Order: sequence, then C-alpha cells, then structure tokens
Amino acid sequence: MSFFDDLAARIDEVDSVVSVGLDADLDRLPGFLDDHDMPRWAFNRRIIDATHEHAACYKPNAAFYEDAEGWRSLRETVAYAHGKGVPVLLDAKRGDIGNTARQYAEILDEVDAITVNPYMGQDSLQPFLERPEKGIFVLCRTSNPGGADLQGLELTSGEPLYQRVAALAELWNEHDNVGLVVGATAPEELEELRESVPEIPFLVPGVGAQGGDAEAAIEHGLTTWNGQDVGVVNSSRGIIFAGEEVGRNTVSGPSDGMDTPEEAYFAAAGEAAKNLKKRLNRHR
Amino acid sequence: MSFFDDLAARIDEVDSVVSVGLDADLDRLPGFLDDHDMPRWAFNRRIIDATHEHAACYKPNAAFYEDAEGWRSLRETVAYAHGKGVPVLLDAKRGDIGNTARQYAEILDEVDAITVNPYMGQDSLQPFLERPEKGIFVLCRTSNPGGADLQGLELTSGEPLYQRVAALAELWNEHDNVGLVVGATAPEELEELRESVPEIPFLVPGVGAQGGDAEAAIEHGLTTWNGQDVGVVNSSRGIIFAGEEVGRNTVSGPSDGMDTPEEAYFAAAGEAAKNLKKRLNRHR
Repeated sequence: MSFFDDLAARIDEVDSVVSVGLDADLDRLPGFLDDHDMPRWAFNRRIIDATHEHAACYKPNAAFYEDAEGWRSLRETVAYAHGKGVPVLLDAKRGDIGNTARQYAEILDEVDAITVNPYMGQDSLQPFLERPEKGIFVLCRTSNPGGADLQGLELTSGEPLYQRVAALAELWNEHDNVGLVVGATAPEELEELRESVPEIPFLVPGVGAQGGDAEAAIEHGLTTWNGQDVGVVNSSRGIIFAGEEVGRNTVSGPSDGMDTPEEAYFAAAGEAAKNLKKRLNRHR
Repeated sequence: MSFFDDLAARIDEVDSVVSVGLDADLDRLPGFLDDHDMPRWAFNRRIIDATHEHAACYKPNAAFYEDAEGWRSLRETVAYAHGKGVPVLLDAKRGDIGNTARQYAEILDEVDAITVNPYMGQDSLQPFLERPEKGIFVLCRTSNPGGADLQGLELTSGEPLYQRVAALAELWNEHDNVGLVVGATAPEELEELRESVPEIPFLVPGVGAQGGDAEAAIEHGLTTWNGQDVGVVNSSRGIIFAGEEVGRNTVSGPSDGMDTPEEAYFAAAGEAAKNLKKRLNRHR
C-alpha cells in the first residue's frame, strides 16, 4: 500500500478531507495541562480523541517539537494517531544535500508522509522520493503573504517559478508518491496548477485562520485516486485552539452539558473539525 | 556586538576562515565511542578539542541532531564551543510561515547564526531577520549537484533565480545581519554573486569532500567588515572524519607518537583543519 492508497481509503471511510494541523505551540496550550510532564503529548492526545472521526490525516508541524520533550511527544502522538487509524503527515519542509538528506529521511520511518522544500533541487529530495510507500509533498505555492516573493517570479519560459516546481515534481514522481503543497489563499493559482498536473494530490493549507477559499480548495485541491477522492485541506489553529473561544464566552461552558472546562475545550476542537468537514463536503 | 563583528574578530584572532562542519553522523562515529550515553556529544567534544585553534566557527548540521539525545548533544556542543571562544552557526536551512517560523527562531537563542531557506519568502524569514545580534545566512547557490535545478532557472529579468535571491537578501538586510550560502563548486557563479553584493558575507561550503575551488572560495567568498576579513569556508566530513584514514593506514597510528587509536583519530581532524586553514590562507 502506498500513502495515497491509505489516504484515499481513510477519506472514503470518514467522508472527510480534513487534515488537522497539530501546531502544539507551548505558549498557547491551555493552562490546565501545565502539570503534565509532556504537555504537547497530553494536548495532542485529547485533540485526537476529539477530532479523529473527522480527520483524514494529522499534520504535526515539526517546528513545534524541536526539543527533547517535543520529539518524545511527537513519537507518542504519531503512535496514538495510528492507533485510531489516521495517517500522519509530518510538516517538516525539509531538503538538504547528500548525507544530510539521508538523515532527515529517517524521520519518514515514523510517519506516513512529509513536506519537503524544493529550493536545493532533486538530489536534496532523493532520499524522500525513493520511499514509494510514503507521501512526499513538495512546497509549490505556499499560503503565506511572502509566498510569491520567489514562487511568483516569472521565468523566461513564460511561467512563474511555482509552475516549474509543479512540472519538476511530476518528473520526480517515478513512484507515484509525490504531492504538492498549494495554498487556498491563491485560488486562481490553485486552479492553474490543477490544470497543469491533474493527477497529483494536493495538500491545501490556509483555509482556517488564514482565510483561504474553501470552495476552490475542494474544486481544485482534490484529484481522483483509483476512483476515490484524494487530497487534503488543512486547518491547524482553527481546529486545535477552537476551545479558546469557549473559555472566553461566559454563556457556554459547563452549562452546555460539559462536565469540566477541559471537556468543553476539546469538544470545541471536535466541533470545529466536524464543521470544516461539512463545509468542505458541500463542495465535493 | 553583532555576529559578523564576533566572526571578524575570531578570524583575526586565529588567522583562519575555516568553518568546521559538525555533521556528527551516528553511522560514521568511531566504534570506540559506542559506550558513551551521548556519542555525538562525546565525538564533538573531542573534535572541538582537536580543531578549535584553527576554527573560525563551528557549523553543526541540525539534521544530525533531530532526536532527543541529539538535541541534548547539540546543546552541550554549543556550550563547549562557546567555552573555547568559537561562534556557532546552526545549519538548519529553516523557513516556515507565521507562528511556526517564530518557533524555529527560538533555536537562535542558543546559537550565534543560522542558515535559512528563502523559498517561502520574506515573512517566513522575518523572525530570524529581526535578530540584529545574530547572523542569518540565506541559501542562495548551493554546492550540491541539483543546486541549479531551481536556483539556475532564468528569470524574465535576464538573471538566474540565485541572483534574485541575493538581491532580495540585500533588501532584507536592514540590520546588517544577513549572509549568503554560496557553494565553492560553482566558482563563476561565486564570482558573479560577489560582484552583485560586494558587502554581504558568504558561507562557502563544498571545498572539502565535495571538491570545490579553494582559491575562488577565498577570492570571492570573503568580504571586508570594519577593515577585517569576514566570511567562512566550510569543510565537514573532510575534517571531522579525517581520522578514518589513520585507522586504515597501518603504517601510522601509535607509531606516530600517539598513545592510543583514539588520540590518533582526533589528531587527524586537527591536522585536517590546520591544513585547510593554511591552504586557504595562501590565497588571502
């Protein structure tokens, strides 16, 4: 089985293309988890409990786990997500030369898919590309404000750089394991890219806190994989920190039938994941 | 003091522009360190003891430290290098959006400089750029075989992408803290870049195991900083694993006046650093 086989099966099973981004920012975790030895793991476990029925995959961002406790928390999180049957895509944005890239690629033993940065070219991604059972998502047109600084530069061939990256990614896709990261904050570019590479699955970030276009994310973000939809639309803060609003709203809380503030906090994450799933499914 | 002030002072003090790359690959560490709890730290400590008199800076590659013991080893390594008066440049090749980039930037609290990837644009680098006391080396023209896949693409403005990256880096250099990574394996491009951005310090990799041009590395890699040379030329495997040759050569070893194979191993790293320093200094 390849990653995209697994992902397509998961999407079919839960009728959801939602990727839940696990940006477990220590500065933003709820205070009631302060006593835990591994607060990021405590947080993620509860988020997974609350959201897994609506999750096509989990996408932990490596940046939030880059210390000793973080790496342990990440490993526990990956195992727990797998226990719930949900694939894990590590948002690591890696890419490095020679011996170093092989080291980075070892991360892949623990997760199902990874994001990579194409700036250093094919050999920097080769250790990832040669893992046919994994999914390798190449950064193409990112959803951040500066995304166009380099990606939008026009080449003498008449295309912007991100289009060339998509074409290169297709060349690099010998094992049918390559995907692209294409933000929902640039819907026209999402559409153009879908036309250029009709069969490559996209990871579409930017629909939640970043305000991207959900309809475009579905219409152009998804493709067909053995007759099933494949591709994911990610929201991170919009789901995992949805409980912050509950705490601020004095009307809700225990009066909503929740026993504790903790339960209400994570129930809000579950609701946010479910609502995004429904909103996206209206366009499928 | 800024990073480049410190680096220029260090270069002057030890009369060396050698950056020693600490690619502490667990698969390649000598067997006599196997019993150590933190073998990468044990290795780096001995490498630092053997090479610090010839080191303008140390450049640990983050890829080799991305697990719990690795992060602890890296912290110890940084502290030890600082104890010897040597700045540390973390080769992390980072770059990520919004909240995530801030998290990556926290790594900077522990090191003196970092490498970053420009593909996601200015906002992805902002948390690094706004640290005036640190050095921020933007990947520009890398030394690996696929370096030109994207970096060499010609823009409608007539320049290759790496030249535009250099121009952008100069724009982003509000705090005089920006450097560029420009490989010695493409000496003509190194020369062109030096002409375009005469005042930006370069980190030049690729002179050791990758076979780049030492003369070009010096002639174009260095610039002047308050009247002193600034810029570094990195070798990683060519220095830290030089001791592997000693083990293979049955003529040398204890007969060279070394008491143990371990001493001979690290003495070879010291020799390799000293020889690279001399070779480079011939062109300064």
